[in-house]
Amino acid sequence: MAAGKEAREAESGNAGFAPLPDPPYHAVIFTSLLGDQEGYAQMAERMTALASRQPGFIGVESARGADGFGITVSYWRDEASLLSWKADAEHMLAQKLGRERWYRHYILRVALVERACSGPRGR
Amino acid sequence: MAAGKEAREAESGNAGFAPLPDPPYHAVIFTSLLGDQEGYAQMAERMTALASRQPGFIGVESARGADGFGITVSYWRDEASLLSWKADAEHMLAQKLGRERWYRHYILRVALVERACSGPRGR
Repeated sequence: MAAGKEAREAESGNAGFAPLPDPPYHAVIFTSLLGDQEGYAQMAERMTALASRQPGFIGVESARGADGFGITVSYWRDEASLLSWKADAEHMLAQKLGRERWYRHYILRVALVERACSGPRGR
Repeated sequence: MAAGKEAREAESGNAGFAPLPDPPYHAVIFTSLLGDQEGYAQMAERMTALASRQPGFIGVESARGADGFGITVSYWRDEASLLSWKADAEHMLAQKLGRERWYRHYILRVALVERACSGPRGR
């Protein structure tokens, strides 16, 4: 168990990768196209810090290209933890600002992770 | 029905967004950190073109930052269609090259999309 835990911690230390617990767990896939970007980076950083302190938070992965199109996937232990984060007061304000100010369009999908693997090592 | 179809087509016309069919359907969340990037963009483009001709393919969303960390999410009607794509001969060769040549690390997660929404309009 200790070796497994160390391996997972080492993995989560890889730039940008979330930890890899045993499924099942939940993923919130958020894809967005930014218009105005003023203030966005600070808000996003603050939301990541807040989310990471929520019960049930596993990790988050995020990438955005120079065209303004980005994907953020956050991972949660269970339905209750992601619903609780959705309803967090500061997060709700950020969601409202996002709709009014930053996002030209977005899609949010909630999914249940059923299996996972990593590489190139360990296959 | 026609209006719904048009709405979906208009949505998929938004830069980078995949269509938004009624759940459930499957998502393959692939996060990767690139090392050597030579030849990668051409392979990725070819794989997107190939995947989009597979039965059961819904769409794909992809973003990569300047740091080389990227997320690609492909969406599939059912388990059979994503397994069939995984076993496609040309795709298998690309996966092998990816492990040997391009990816410093990757995580692949297979998930079942349970619900989805989009915005800022249509909420």
